[in-house]
Amino acid sequence: MKTGKLWGPRFEKKPSALAEAFTSARDVRSKAPADERLIPYDLWGSRAHVIMLARRNILSLREARLLLKGLKEIEKLWRKGRFRLDPGKEDVHSNVESWLIAKYGMEIGGKLHTARSRNDQVALDMRLYLRDCALQFIAELLAVVHVLIDQGKKYKARPFPGYTHHQPAQVTTLGHVWLAFAEALLRDLGRFQDWQERFNQNPLGSMTGYGTSFPIDRVFTSKLLGFAGPTPNSLDAIQNRGEPEAEMGFAVAAMMNHLSSLAQTLILFSTGEFGFFELDEAYSSGSSMMPQKRNPDSLEVIKAKAAVAQGQVSSLLAIGRSQFLGYNRDTQWTKYLIMDLLDECLPVPKIMGEIVASLQVKEKKITALSRKGFITAPDLLEAVVQEGKIPFRLAKKALEKAILYSGKEGAERITDSALRRALREESLDWPANEALVHKFQNEKFIVSRRKAVGGTSPAALEKNITQLLRTRRRYSRWLAAQKRAISAAQSRLQEMSAKE
Amino acid sequence: MKTGKLWGPRFEKKPSALAEAFTSARDVRSKAPADERLIPYDLWGSRAHVIMLARRNILSLREARLLLKGLKEIEKLWRKGRFRLDPGKEDVHSNVESWLIAKYGMEIGGKLHTARSRNDQVALDMRLYLRDCALQFIAELLAVVHVLIDQGKKYKARPFPGYTHHQPAQVTTLGHVWLAFAEALLRDLGRFQDWQERFNQNPLGSMTGYGTSFPIDRVFTSKLLGFAGPTPNSLDAIQNRGEPEAEMGFAVAAMMNHLSSLAQTLILFSTGEFGFFELDEAYSSGSSMMPQKRNPDSLEVIKAKAAVAQGQVSSLLAIGRSQFLGYNRDTQWTKYLIMDLLDECLPVPKIMGEIVASLQVKEKKITALSRKGFITAPDLLEAVVQEGKIPFRLAKKALEKAILYSGKEGAERITDSALRRALREESLDWPANEALVHKFQNEKFIVSRRKAVGGTSPAALEKNITQLLRTRRRYSRWLAAQKRAISAAQSRLQEMSAKE
Amino acid sequence: MKTGKLWGPRFEKKPSALAEAFTSARDVRSKAPADERLIPYDLWGSRAHVIMLARRNILSLREARLLLKGLKEIEKLWRKGRFRLDPGKEDVHSNVESWLIAKYGMEIGGKLHTARSRNDQVALDMRLYLRDCALQFIAELLAVVHVLIDQGKKYKARPFPGYTHHQPAQVTTLGHVWLAFAEALLRDLGRFQDWQERFNQNPLGSMTGYGTSFPIDRVFTSKLLGFAGPTPNSLDAIQNRGEPEAEMGFAVAAMMNHLSSLAQTLILFSTGEFGFFELDEAYSSGSSMMPQKRNPDSLEVIKAKAAVAQGQVSSLLAIGRSQFLGYNRDTQWTKYLIMDLLDECLPVPKIMGEIVASLQVKEKKITALSRKGFITAPDLLEAVVQEGKIPFRLAKKALEKAILYSGKEGAERITDSALRRALREESLDWPANEALVHKFQNEKFIVSRRKAVGGTSPAALEKNITQLLRTRRRYSRWLAAQKRAISAAQSRLQEMSAKE
Amino acid sequence: MKTGKLWGPRFEKKPSALAEAFTSARDVRSKAPADERLIPYDLWGSRAHVIMLARRNILSLREARLLLKGLKEIEKLWRKGRFRLDPGKEDVHSNVESWLIAKYGMEIGGKLHTARSRNDQVALDMRLYLRDCALQFIAELLAVVHVLIDQGKKYKARPFPGYTHHQPAQVTTLGHVWLAFAEALLRDLGRFQDWQERFNQNPLGSMTGYGTSFPIDRVFTSKLLGFAGPTPNSLDAIQNRGEPEAEMGFAVAAMMNHLSSLAQTLILFSTGEFGFFELDEAYSSGSSMMPQKRNPDSLEVIKAKAAVAQGQVSSLLAIGRSQFLGYNRDTQWTKYLIMDLLDECLPVPKIMGEIVASLQVKEKKITALSRKGFITAPDLLEAVVQEGKIPFRLAKKALEKAILYSGKEGAERITDSALRRALREESLDWPANEALVHKFQNEKFIVSRRKAVGGTSPAALEKNITQLLRTRRRYSRWLAAQKRAISAAQSRLQEMSAKE
Repeated sequence: MKTGKLWGPRFEKKPSALAEAFTSARDVRSKAPADERLIPYDLWGSRAHVIMLARRNILSLREARLLLKGLKEIEKLWRKGRFRLDPGKEDVHSNVESWLIAKYGMEIGGKLHTARSRNDQVALDMRLYLRDCALQFIAELLAVVHVLIDQGKKYKARPFPGYTHHQPAQVTTLGHVWLAFAEALLRDLGRFQDWQERFNQNPLGSMTGYGTSFPIDRVFTSKLLGFAGPTPNSLDAIQNRGEPEAEMGFAVAAMMNHLSSLAQTLILFSTGEFGFFELDEAYSSGSSMMPQKRNPDSLEVIKAKAAVAQGQVSSLLAIGRSQFLGYNRDTQWTKYLIMDLLDECLPVPKIMGEIVASLQVKEKKITALSRKGFITAPDLLEAVVQEGKIPFRLAKKALEKAILYSGKEGAERITDSALRRALREESLDWPANEALVHKFQNEKFIVSRRKAVGGTSPAALEKNITQLLRTRRRYSRWLAAQKRAISAAQSRLQEMSAKE
Repeated sequence: MKTGKLWGPRFEKKPSALAEAFTSARDVRSKAPADERLIPYDLWGSRAHVIMLARRNILSLREARLLLKGLKEIEKLWRKGRFRLDPGKEDVHSNVESWLIAKYGMEIGGKLHTARSRNDQVALDMRLYLRDCALQFIAELLAVVHVLIDQGKKYKARPFPGYTHHQPAQVTTLGHVWLAFAEALLRDLGRFQDWQERFNQNPLGSMTGYGTSFPIDRVFTSKLLGFAGPTPNSLDAIQNRGEPEAEMGFAVAAMMNHLSSLAQTLILFSTGEFGFFELDEAYSSGSSMMPQKRNPDSLEVIKAKAAVAQGQVSSLLAIGRSQFLGYNRDTQWTKYLIMDLLDECLPVPKIMGEIVASLQVKEKKITALSRKGFITAPDLLEAVVQEGKIPFRLAKKALEKAILYSGKEGAERITDSALRRALREESLDWPANEALVHKFQNEKFIVSRRKAVGGTSPAALEKNITQLLRTRRRYSRWLAAQKRAISAAQSRLQEMSAKE
Repeated sequence: MKTGKLWGPRFEKKPSALAEAFTSARDVRSKAPADERLIPYDLWGSRAHVIMLARRNILSLREARLLLKGLKEIEKLWRKGRFRLDPGKEDVHSNVESWLIAKYGMEIGGKLHTARSRNDQVALDMRLYLRDCALQFIAELLAVVHVLIDQGKKYKARPFPGYTHHQPAQVTTLGHVWLAFAEALLRDLGRFQDWQERFNQNPLGSMTGYGTSFPIDRVFTSKLLGFAGPTPNSLDAIQNRGEPEAEMGFAVAAMMNHLSSLAQTLILFSTGEFGFFELDEAYSSGSSMMPQKRNPDSLEVIKAKAAVAQGQVSSLLAIGRSQFLGYNRDTQWTKYLIMDLLDECLPVPKIMGEIVASLQVKEKKITALSRKGFITAPDLLEAVVQEGKIPFRLAKKALEKAILYSGKEGAERITDSALRRALREESLDWPANEALVHKFQNEKFIVSRRKAVGGTSPAALEKNITQLLRTRRRYSRWLAAQKRAISAAQSRLQEMSAKE
Repeated sequence: MKTGKLWGPRFEKKPSALAEAFTSARDVRSKAPADERLIPYDLWGSRAHVIMLARRNILSLREARLLLKGLKEIEKLWRKGRFRLDPGKEDVHSNVESWLIAKYGMEIGGKLHTARSRNDQVALDMRLYLRDCALQFIAELLAVVHVLIDQGKKYKARPFPGYTHHQPAQVTTLGHVWLAFAEALLRDLGRFQDWQERFNQNPLGSMTGYGTSFPIDRVFTSKLLGFAGPTPNSLDAIQNRGEPEAEMGFAVAAMMNHLSSLAQTLILFSTGEFGFFELDEAYSSGSSMMPQKRNPDSLEVIKAKAAVAQGQVSSLLAIGRSQFLGYNRDTQWTKYLIMDLLDECLPVPKIMGEIVASLQVKEKKITALSRKGFITAPDLLEAVVQEGKIPFRLAKKALEKAILYSGKEGAERITDSALRRALREESLDWPANEALVHKFQNEKFIVSRRKAVGGTSPAALEKNITQLLRTRRRYSRWLAAQKRAISAAQSRLQEMSAKE
């Protein structure tokens, strides 16, 4: 009770800290000013800019040295949590510039904004911030895909009831299910990669959208900031602020769709009624009033966040629509929208990975349901068609009847007597003896027969796993290369900065 | 420069504080925890609940007295800014209960949650909070409508170029324009009233959605909380959390559509190219780099906020869609969504009122444009039809030609020679002498001829004003009555609370 | 097989025609031109306009008579399906006018458009069309609410497992569940009523948004068209085209949220795993390949349509945002959006009513689940608090323990031994004998104890039913009055039309 | 008048047929059944499937030959417009199968559905359809980008007023503006390429999501259908129906954002007030009532369509959210949503290309506005900083003052006297003689000074053009390769089909 939680003793385990923060969310936590998370990026950008200005003799060496010293100091203060944004100054850019002016006087500090506009400054800060987020999503997705592939391996031969329309469809394996989600999440990962390939360009130097008469070197700053190169048209870079935001928003929303569908699937499979899984207690919550409760709160929250993400994509697209030429302040709100969306969704892959990894699988119920609701009928139908060379459409008709008759016998699989009667009525010829009917409805046997690419047989799943691992590796290598490039740029900056 | 603003001397006036906060927005300001704004409502609800429990002998007099004392003390602390939410406790409800337990021990504090669930507690808090917001919107809209009617009166006879498709359509009056927006905003106000009529019901006592065996009195608590009565079905009240939020969201978005359209209209009319208005400097912003700038930032922000509102409505609706029976945690996110939306949009009517009231009207450009672009042709066309008894479709054909010919003469109104030629070619008979052609294109004269209800003549506009004032008065009275009812409930609570 | 359906013999009943059309949807059916559904409204408007023009001597009696004759003839043709829109003519308005010109020559037909603009003409047509849709929704909702109240009555004493978070929460009654949805749908109905109260105004005569110099009588045409009166500002009426569309869109989306949640609830309760309901075969579909299938397709479609509705609301709001002064063609798309949305959603209440009315209730499973999963624990907890005068928070702690211990005994309700142990450990005093523990977990008994307004006891539900019936009656009367007013207007028009 | 258009003689040119269809839209045109556009794809898929079945001995050669003959015949009928969907049969799949059964009897026709489910059949049809649309968008975008680059070349040295916040910002060149849009549209093109790289996979053979026991060869059918390969997990392919649709929807919406912003920019620049452009008459519309009108209807429609697209993306994402495992019928609606969205937006790039190519540029107004509103002040400021080695922040302060003083003199550029006064007041040292002040405000000179990458100087724009052409060529080659691959697959199919 000490923690002020209104439930507890029914649980044998303490809630995961991640899950706790996840569910209490913004109830008791404030949200930092938007520009707070831009501070390090703003400083990085300013340092690169100053070094470039000095190399181009736009600033003197002394001016540059002092400005760099000041920027470094702000960074140190910030790392110690002692550089706070003053709400009396409009934004992070004003805060930094004011600090330098206060420290070194107008003669020095007043030169920081040379060949620069807040328009390209915030565009730069956002690219750097979003790039880090894209890479973080990729890392998180690689981790959760790892968990899913592991589960896929572990359960690749465990029969499991497959559904369509919330109704039993065909037996599959639990491994097949996990791997389907791995497959989807790797596509999601690809969208973040696409984002990076499209937007890892340097807007700095675009100014207000119309360039500058100062002899700046945008290729040089691109190198110090880890970009592939400068954006090739200054107007485009400024006018379309909000486009990288919208595309990342979509990538997140698409990912959230898969994660929310996994969440919904786990919620249902964890009900007593389905009873296939049990959530680890660390990811369940109690109730303030109902003593028996073990609720899948974290999973519900994921669903809510997916809904939130979609609305934010909608707003992001809305702001960019029908915009008149040049920068318009409307786009400032894309900053808040994407930050809110990222705040909501960045922790989701991790918690999903933990939930899946800690899930308890209840074999008995799974086995029982793999044999009920005529879930094995489609495979028997295929056998009838294959063995009897019977037109599919006719055989299906017969099987439908067989199910009707079996149901009247109280059975939940097709009985040989019912099948015989149905085939007879449809004048079809297939030796519906008990052994055959049983064999082609045996859940282990039937999943192993679906051997084509993408199918449920152990061999097909092995192939799926191999392919997933290969893709995953390719992405890992790409991610490592990206990170190396960024580190290299930072080192280059440090060096240059020391040299000046 | 002291304020850290990166622009200034070009302005003779200081920016409005409201405008400054409006545009720097969340860049340098943090957002309080969501439940912080629920504290007073949570306390109000708990006090009403405790009084009721005592009257029903569910609590003893002594227990109730202590709890009420504690709740009052929390309220005092909160008023002084000294009751802060502890992020270690899940939400406002846990925070309050824990405080009471810490103060009075489990024997007393542990009874607060009797006959209560967090489900109905938060539903109650949100209703109280949203009700206050609805009434505040109504008050703000009454104020901005007041400004618009005033402007409508002032400019009811001032000719003004009317547009369709961004192209000159017909001369109207500036008064007609302002009154059109007043009309629209009064409809918006009506939606907040509808909200209040629909949702001013007390969910307290719905518990988890399934009621309680305690002999609670929901009619009584409704009186203490200023509600029309209790919600009539406990499951509905809990299951549909998020519906009042979505409906208020829509009401806000609809209002924002009108305000953003007014904003867009003012932005264009304030360009040098149109040149009809000049924004007061207090509502304009400069640039960090371009010294000449006087930008309509506040108006652009209104447009952005309208886009944000729409996305949030979308998320609110999304969360409520396809929900399984009973409370689901997904709906907790409706709290954040509606709070964010209200934070963004509550200040908008006020700033719009100030902008409109302080706008400078540039008569010369307005007059010039009321005479150009063949904007008076439709009225001349009507005169030709009326006076000449000519079929409209034929007359229009002739007038189109007359415009073509006048244009070739370099004119921007129809000339009598061009009209004569066109009528002759179409074998139509109308005495197109110069005086008539001039008269029926005189902007003052033609706006005064449109006398039907809704038209632009001074008399028609007077009628529009009378009607608007009547509606406005009706809403004012309704608002006053609502506020009285709420105050009365609060007084009743104070009394009862003192009595216990 | 004749019908080309790929499934069948497994079903003993034929699919409902409504369900069939509902699910095959637009796959094999084309969508009529948008303006086709505006034909009758356009004719109505033109007839009222012509009569008014004659009374105001803008048209001669002879002109009016011929135009009215022509309009009547078009209506006759249309009723016989022989007035088809010619895609060579831009819209319904041009089609009608061209027909009259072809029939009576330019001298007569060319006068139809006198004192009129397509802007106010389409605004009028849409109001008339939307008004009919609003009233139709109200009628459909009254019908489905009727079904739900009936079910509520029938099952008001049938215990039923109540859920929160997809987990067993508390026993309720099936009646309570049905009535919750009735309650929600009556609120939805209220939104259509609000729409009608707000928008049943006549835009005709607003012209391009700037009125007319013809001496038209808008009060008179309002009477012939069944409107409360003319819109009071011509610019507002034209500029805000799309606002009635957006508000109706929201009303539909809010309704669809409730219907989709009911759909989702029925889908889950109809799975074999829950097993509380069985959909009537007429509302289930088979599969092209899986012979055993009986899928809840219609219910899934309702969920999809709810998603579609939300996107369309989003588009409708988007079009109305940040619009420059006066009519802009963008708003033409609001016509298609709202028509598509209404096409999708108008049939939904009816099919839902049929599904609910024909549902089979499976008592055994319901009863079993009303006794499992510790679903009765909250009521036992309340009894412990009430009878033992024990602080709620302490008692809950004890009950949580009791559940843990009972679970280890393999029980799914709290056992007296477990409860005793838990109470002892918490040093609480309550005579936990078997009889008491059993009594306070008896599902019939406990639902009957929740007597407060909104609760689950038969008396509380009776009260809920009475209130619902009263509200339903009030709406029925209102609807009848609206329909009478419209009929009266139509009769007036017929009379006048005959007189001319 | 013959055409039933309500305007005309004011125009010297006839409207473009594309523009006419674009604006009258769905008013007078019906929408074909959804599955009509899937017919060719469904036939293609079935032919590939049958060939594969024969190679795998699942069908006999004779069976395959007859089925292929039938399918070919249906295709011939369809090409002649004589294969119409029968609304009595659920969808295109049933229609085709029924035709074959009717033609060849159940013994042959009844075998078409062997090793197949409607789930994978529709997934396949949609992939083929969407792939064609993606490639068509790419072709259309290549064309419009071509127009924009041409305009960019033509106007690369023409000074043009640049805006931010709808206010004059800095002089740029008209070429810079066109190239900015070319840049953006090439990014849009990239999203369609990403789509193709991600989704050009063959879902056929995924069956209901759980594979098949028939020994099918999915690699082989992939080759006949022009896919990179089979989807690697059958469940993923079926469960995530709607994901390719949503991603294409986003790609379209992002493109529409750029096109709608270009539309809005052209609308404003074509007003009399701005007066920079004149729309070709073929892309303007008149009014039914106002004789002077030349409205930019097509551009307004583009804006509306952008709003529609966003709502449809929202619906597409909504349907895919929180979906339970396996196929759910909800996703059928993704078919209608994406088809509607593509119908709306596929013609947009083409019409935009035509509008831009036919635009009249009004040099006089452009030149005038390139010299007003202190639009040249930022360049003078940069000159002051550069030449005078003055801290930017101080210089800007001085320039702000200089503008204030110049304005009071009635000037719209900074005068040397005003600048001198301002510099003096700020104790800054710069030789503000008339020649210098004039030189650094000469529009031709100043745009030529902005030489850095992305800037407005002729050289910088040349570089931009070179880069754009290179990117465009790369995409053209990629597109050609895609088309070749698809053709090759089709030839392969024809050959195989002939061989059987």
